[in-house]
Formats: sequence, C-alpha cells, structure tokens
Amino acid sequence: MVVKIPYYIIVLGTAGSGKTTLTSMLMNYLDSHQMDVAAVNLDPAVEELPYNPDVDIREWVDAREVMVKRGLGPNGALIASVDMLALNIGELKDEVDSLKSNYIIIDTPGQLEIFAFRDSGPVVLRTIIGDSKAVSLFLIDGLYALKPSNLFSAMLLSASTFFRIKYPQINVFTKIDLLSEAEYSGLLSMIENPEELASRVVEDADINLMWSSEEVYGLAEKLYSFESVPVSNNSGQGFDDLYALIQRVLAGGEDYLTEEPNPLL
Amino acid sequence: MVVKIPYYIIVLGTAGSGKTTLTSMLMNYLDSHQMDVAAVNLDPAVEELPYNPDVDIREWVDAREVMVKRGLGPNGALIASVDMLALNIGELKDEVDSLKSNYIIIDTPGQLEIFAFRDSGPVVLRTIIGDSKAVSLFLIDGLYALKPSNLFSAMLLSASTFFRIKYPQINVFTKIDLLSEAEYSGLLSMIENPEELASRVVEDADINLMWSSEEVYGLAEKLYSFESVPVSNNSGQGFDDLYALIQRVLAGGEDYLTEEPNPLL
Repeated sequence: MVVKIPYYIIVLGTAGSGKTTLTSMLMNYLDSHQMDVAAVNLDPAVEELPYNPDVDIREWVDAREVMVKRGLGPNGALIASVDMLALNIGELKDEVDSLKSNYIIIDTPGQLEIFAFRDSGPVVLRTIIGDSKAVSLFLIDGLYALKPSNLFSAMLLSASTFFRIKYPQINVFTKIDLLSEAEYSGLLSMIENPEELASRVVEDADINLMWSSEEVYGLAEKLYSFESVPVSNNSGQGFDDLYALIQRVLAGGEDYLTEEPNPLL
Repeated sequence: MVVKIPYYIIVLGTAGSGKTTLTSMLMNYLDSHQMDVAAVNLDPAVEELPYNPDVDIREWVDAREVMVKRGLGPNGALIASVDMLALNIGELKDEVDSLKSNYIIIDTPGQLEIFAFRDSGPVVLRTIIGDSKAVSLFLIDGLYALKPSNLFSAMLLSASTFFRIKYPQINVFTKIDLLSEAEYSGLLSMIENPEELASRVVEDADINLMWSSEEVYGLAEKLYSFESVPVSNNSGQGFDDLYALIQRVLAGGEDYLTEEPNPLL
C-alpha cells in the first residue's frame, strides 16, 4: 500500500527576493506537469498575491486590522501579526490537512526576520508539517548576489535561517532573466566554486576584513553544503533543475510515491 | 595638534534585541563618565524612544505618514520608509556633522533586514560616517541565545550583517538580568568556547544536520572572530566591558584623543 502524504515546500527569503512570484511559478510548473499542488499563504501583511492560496492566514489575521484594532504603528503591527500566526494554528492546520495534494507550497511573510528569528515561525511550520517531509527554498535576489560580499552575506543568512527552520534547504537565485550573459556566468562561477567566491570577497576593497582568504574560503566551503539553483520566476528558466533538486531532497531522488507514476524525472 | 573627530557606534540587531534601550543606557554610561555623546535615530517607524535623539530621521520620514500618503500596507510602508532614508541623507548628514561630540551612537531601524540587506542602510551609514572610525554592535537577545541552535543562528546572522555593514563588529548579548545564574554560566560557556557551542548544536536532537561536528566546529571557530560581551540594559552590568571593547576597536586600546585626558580606561 502506498500512503499518500503531502510533501511540503517552504518558500523563504528577505523582502523582495521573489517569494510570492516563485510560489506562483512553481504552482504553475507542478500543475502543468500533472502534479496536485496547493499553496498556503502565511503572510498576514501581503496586499496582493499573484496566485490563489488554498489556505490563507489572512482569514484569521490581517496586519492592517491588527494595526487599527491595537493602535500600533506599521512595525508593531507587522511583528504582532506574525507573532499571532501561532494563535490560529489549530484551524489553519485543519484546513491544510484537508488539502490532499501531492505538494503543498508554504509562502512565508514578506520579511524573513520576523518569521525565522522569532518564536512563531518555526512553531507554525512544525505544527503544519508534522511528520511529513519538507524542504526549504531560500531565495536570494540574483542581482543583489552579483556583488561578492552580498552573495557571501546572503549565504551566511541562508545558513542562519537553516538553524531556525531546520528542514533541508536549497539556495534559489532568482531574477536571472534580469542579468546580462556576462553577469550570469560571473554569478554561476561564484555559486559553483567556493574558492572563486572567497577570493573575490577578499579582493573586495571596501571591506576591512578580519579574516584571511584561507579563513573566508573555509567558511565558504561549509556554506556550499547547501545546493544552489538559479531560476527566473518570469520565464520559468531553471525550474526543471529546481524541481529535480526538490525531488532529490524530498524523495532521495525517487519519484513521488503516488498510485500513478510520476510524470517528471 | 589633536584633531577632534567623532567615533561612531552603530547599534544593530533584530526586532526586540534591545537596540533602543542599549542606545539609551550607553548614552547614560558615557555621559556619566564625562564623555560627550550624541544619538542619531535612523528608525522611521519607531513610535517611542527611551532617549532624546540629537538627530532624528523622523524629522524627514515617518512610516505612518508614508503608509497614508502612498496608500501602502504596513509592510510596504516600512520598506519604503527605510528605502527613503537615503533621499534625505544630505540634510541629515549636515545635522550630524554639527554635533561635535566624542561619540555618536547610531540607532538603526527596528528590523535589521530592511536596513542591512537592502541598499539604503549601508549607503546611509557610509555617508554619515565618512572617514571617521566606527564600530558596529550586533545585539543578540540573551534569552533567545540560550538554545544552542539559536545562538549559532544568531552568530551566522551577525557575520552575514558584517559583510553588508563592513565596520568592525562586536556581538553584544542583551537581557542577561533575565537569566538565572545557571543559564548565564551556560550562555557564557558557549559564547567563550566554539567547541562547546559546536558540540551542543550537534546534540540538538531536532536538527537533521548535514554537517559533521567537526564541520560545525570549523564554522563556529570562524564566527568567534567577533568579540562578544554580555550586558544588561537595565542594570548596566557589562557596560564597563562593552566600553573597553569599543575602545579597543576604535582607538586600538588607546584613550580617546581629546584635549582632555580620557577619564575612562
């Protein structure tokens, strides 16, 4: 007997890294390859979404309402509304459990920090996902990552997030359609080669670095334990590779265990 | 001739790490030791401050106003208002330059992410500070850091922030007055000893770690390049040590170069 449990895909990243558009594109991708897919929106402050969430935290918590009802400023309202996610987790989990999809994509609040580095984010994820398998996609803006010190910073941030969210994690470089060919190959050479990144970080003249290039290389090498994939949320470029990586993490490279053979891979 | 230039102290950290209260306590500390000190508030969304800023970004940008005038939600308003810091940097810098204090403390926006990982934060700091010397204090909530994986995550976040802000950086563990004696010595043993932290991170049962304990130790060792100091913003405990560390970074352990001998150190 094959038990049909969902796989969870958690979409993480700083404000503007492309979380909602990646969620939308990944839904289309999986759907167009005959996979059942559903999306959960956990951002109580999002104003518009490019996809229709199957479960939406705004049914219970809305940041604008929190602001008005509690007399908070925008910052206080944002923090309070994300902290409040955990209060409605029972009902939210019931709705998610009723979805019966192969893949459930969890889109997280606009700002990484109030979700990943405060109590409620990890608790909410753990409750929703339970014993199912999950993978985190850590989104990094490809334009931002062109600068070596930014890329290094983003990879450290990804590792920092991993130690809070604690699911296997993939670094996803977004917006590659906005890069020139030279920029794209420069980015690729850094994300594929820790030595290249380390030497470019050390060359970066405006850093008064306390580390030697060997030490930066040592750090970089560790950070390369995370798999990386460049994608475009507009053109869909890279989504075959992204799906293959997700699949490798979730099912150890095996096809998804459904009654039907998986049309992909 | 001794040139009197200010030293800048940048206060960084996630929402709730204690930035405004540390700014307030550090002002009192320096003031009570006969040092000229001024504070700059760079948070356009802060509602109340426990100190009187000498220069206040809210004179030019207020997140609530941005929300109303631009018809944005709380999240959009927060991001837009921090992005707008750079628009008023000329006037702000003129005000800061007129301060003539020995120490100028720069208190940053409530959320680290929109300041450190977006364009305007580093640009604004670089413009204000110019060729003067500066040190970053990266605040970590001492209660949060009791859990080994949280501490490790916070140290990675600190390193990630360093590669954006790029001034010498000190990790400051706050709220130690809220810790029991046993908790405090547990925290100390982890922040003083990378081997202890690494082994406790690896023991942490709820992580499916892709790294061996040697690899975690290797990472931890690098992250210990940042000096650490535990403080209480309520009792003032640890502020002598914090000042000594700041002084070591800013003046290489020398006293502040004023016409008058420095009463401290």
